Amino acid sequence: MDAIDICYASAGELAPLIKNKELSPVEIIDAHLARIEATEPVLNSFITLLADQSRAAARQAEADIQKGNYRGPLHGIPVALKDLYNTGGVRTTSGSRLFDNFIPEEDCTVAARFRDAGAILLGKLNMHQFAYGPTGENPDYGHMHNPWDPEKVTGGSSGGSGSATAAGQCTITTGSDTGGSIRIPAALCGIVGLKPTYGLVSRYGLTPLSWSLDHPGPMVRTVEDAALAMNVIAGYDPKDVASAQVDIPDYTSALTNDVRGLRIGIPKEYFDAPLDPEVSVSVRDALDLLESLGAVVTVVDLPMYKDTQAISTAILMAEASAYHQDLLGRDGDKLYPPIRLRLEAGLFITAADYLRAQQGRTIFNRQARRLLDDVDLLAGPTEPVTAPQLLAERIQVGEHEMGTTAALTQYSRPYNLTGFPAIAIPCGFSQSGMPISLQLAGRPFDELTVLRAAHAYEQATDWHKRRPPI
Amino acid sequence: MDAIDICYASAGELAPLIKNKELSPVEIIDAHLARIEATEPVLNSFITLLADQSRAAARQAEADIQKGNYRGPLHGIPVALKDLYNTGGVRTTSGSRLFDNFIPEEDCTVAARFRDAGAILLGKLNMHQFAYGPTGENPDYGHMHNPWDPEKVTGGSSGGSGSATAAGQCTITTGSDTGGSIRIPAALCGIVGLKPTYGLVSRYGLTPLSWSLDHPGPMVRTVEDAALAMNVIAGYDPKDVASAQVDIPDYTSALTNDVRGLRIGIPKEYFDAPLDPEVSVSVRDALDLLESLGAVVTVVDLPMYKDTQAISTAILMAEASAYHQDLLGRDGDKLYPPIRLRLEAGLFITAADYLRAQQGRTIFNRQARRLLDDVDLLAGPTEPVTAPQLLAERIQVGEHEMGTTAALTQYSRPYNLTGFPAIAIPCGFSQSGMPISLQLAGRPFDELTVLRAAHAYEQATDWHKRRPPI
Repeated sequence: MDAIDICYASAGELAPLIKNKELSPVEIIDAHLARIEATEPVLNSFITLLADQSRAAARQAEADIQKGNYRGPLHGIPVALKDLYNTGGVRTTSGSRLFDNFIPEEDCTVAARFRDAGAILLGKLNMHQFAYGPTGENPDYGHMHNPWDPEKVTGGSSGGSGSATAAGQCTITTGSDTGGSIRIPAALCGIVGLKPTYGLVSRYGLTPLSWSLDHPGPMVRTVEDAALAMNVIAGYDPKDVASAQVDIPDYTSALTNDVRGLRIGIPKEYFDAPLDPEVSVSVRDALDLLESLGAVVTVVDLPMYKDTQAISTAILMAEASAYHQDLLGRDGDKLYPPIRLRLEAGLFITAADYLRAQQGRTIFNRQARRLLDDVDLLAGPTEPVTAPQLLAERIQVGEHEMGTTAALTQYSRPYNLTGFPAIAIPCGFSQSGMPISLQLAGRPFDELTVLRAAHAYEQATDWHKRRPPI
Repeated sequence: MDAIDICYASAGELAPLIKNKELSPVEIIDAHLARIEATEPVLNSFITLLADQSRAAARQAEADIQKGNYRGPLHGIPVALKDLYNTGGVRTTSGSRLFDNFIPEEDCTVAARFRDAGAILLGKLNMHQFAYGPTGENPDYGHMHNPWDPEKVTGGSSGGSGSATAAGQCTITTGSDTGGSIRIPAALCGIVGLKPTYGLVSRYGLTPLSWSLDHPGPMVRTVEDAALAMNVIAGYDPKDVASAQVDIPDYTSALTNDVRGLRIGIPKEYFDAPLDPEVSVSVRDALDLLESLGAVVTVVDLPMYKDTQAISTAILMAEASAYHQDLLGRDGDKLYPPIRLRLEAGLFITAADYLRAQQGRTIFNRQARRLLDDVDLLAGPTEPVTAPQLLAERIQVGEHEMGTTAALTQYSRPYNLTGFPAIAIPCGFSQSGMPISLQLAGRPFDELTVLRAAHAYEQATDWHKRRPPI
């Protein structure tokens, strides 16, 4: 396996080689550092690269494994975290120079769990400031660039996670998803992004954006790697008030390649919404393929889908402004102006507006949950378009010209409201070579069904094997 | 037993007589209707009196019991509900003439459970409009008057429940408690009021005031009757989203008369707050008595107590205004002006303010809950004063002159924030003959300990046997 193949190998492929001492973590980290050196001038995925630290950790992992202390499938695997995951002793900026010197004393729970599993922290990833945007702009640490076309956005807010994973800079990365911030960059960069059920992965030590909507999760290149990451990071944490006390299965048990009889519902509203025809065709082809594998695909009604943008926006803006109010008063002039504007606007949302939005959310959630009494999954596009040009404020979506934020979040926001697990997986490419993505969502805490369908689809296609031109 | 003794008898005393056919429900209802006729011109407890309907129900109950179909301790017992509890076929005004003609089709869950238990609905009780006030003013249906001195308030918002129960107009009544609306009138009228744990009694079919703070519960003359009422109304209801799925004990099992070793903590802040010296002495005497019965009384610290008025006010005003916003726009000029003003003011609370108040609530709740790791109950006065004059906007509390609402809610609001069960029980009388009340609060869903301590205290005293001069 040459250096570039190591960089594009999944954790699932690397793990047995590491375990059997056929491949050293040192070799793996060196390959990735070289890949980062070659691609980072274009991509700008990292805010903080831990070259020396990751090499030292790789040597330690190598020594431990030589001594027979193999910890499991993530031992020696490179992991990088979105830069709002606190890392003890390593600066954590949340994408803002205001926190350029903020060095947490303690790891967030996710970082601690990766560390305990033997994963090697390669660095901290670039992001939309304070996770407050769906594109991947960041004037403080430089904009993020899409490996499939650097003039295009990565999607956000976890843009560095998207580009690093897609370009073979890192094997496993993490994002946080409040209105789509895992699934959007996963879709636009052509990788797998899993937003787990609300409360399943601890948020302790993560900078909040909107606490009733925030979901941490893995961004990877294969569904198997999503399962391997979830095996490490999912589970109850008393330090997160929203953490759920549920039994955690072995997520790799979902990788059965069997979707016979699985009932998949397509909300018809998803295809009535503004949608690029190329994306529409790819997603319909993907659903046809799942049907040919034995799934039962039906059309369902989700009429309140049309209200989810307004509901989600009101809740997100209100909670974000409440959280950042002190910062705004102290250092508003040092924030990226579009984010400052959004935070200031959010302060004008009344409590009555917010509470009505939460009531609307409850009604929508019941409507969506009832659908899942009759089907096992809800499916549709993750994004209505492929990656837009960097800094485009408005874009063309099929026949509609619309705001970029509204377009990029239209299919992702509903599942932040419901808290359902939702995965984005590659399902094709546009004529211009940009990735297209299928979204599958399931019942709360039923990640196994989501992963099973995503894996079966993935294994029947080659999309995940394509490498970006960079 | 003469008619007046029937009116002042508890359900616990009446039940065996009914069961053994020594006393007919017809006789009981007739006695109460006569008592109401005699006292209602002064008290004004009822908005709707169901004279014919309750007589018919009493005859039915008598016949059923004669036939051997005795349903249990509430069979044939007069019950009256605060007029925001929906009653199928019986108008439910929420204290406002705007709903003078509103006749619900369906019983609320509490009303249905009382009905199924064989209790007889005597009428619907007067209340502060929309439950939005702690005194007992109601220009639409007339102010409520305290049976111990009709120039004094009953306390609110469940004022009619307080006066009806205290004056022997009804055996069991209900209130709803958002900032103290069960415990305040219970305290000022000299009866027992239990605010159960948040989520333990269904709110389905009740007009909300502030849904994260609203608690329905019983208002009675003895602790045993509180237990008997809870046996009927407590328990999971899928129609209330906040309803808790917990096991329901037999609440009468708490009536052991044994408080040996029970640990009672007195937050020192309760006695540092504005407090009438007569009340202070009575409450301290009550705690001394509990100690002499074997309880272990200690002083504890609850420093965030001082923040609970502000936190509770922000949450309550925001939620009340969100709920009543449409009504305010449509019929604002028909609301009682002080309530209209409060609802309008609540619309100016921002979502950021509201969310910060909810965050403050979380921190306070943890502080209070931690105390209950070391003690079994928290104790103190229910009210810092005895009942104020009707319509007094400001009152003297010890050395402080303060707003009536702030004074009357100062000890009750904290347990709306925490959701802890809290009971108000009579613990003495002022020189001028007005009731004084002890408040005991316990761990969530630990009503048994709250009832056990309240019952043991009650049984060691005669306060609950006094009858008001009316």
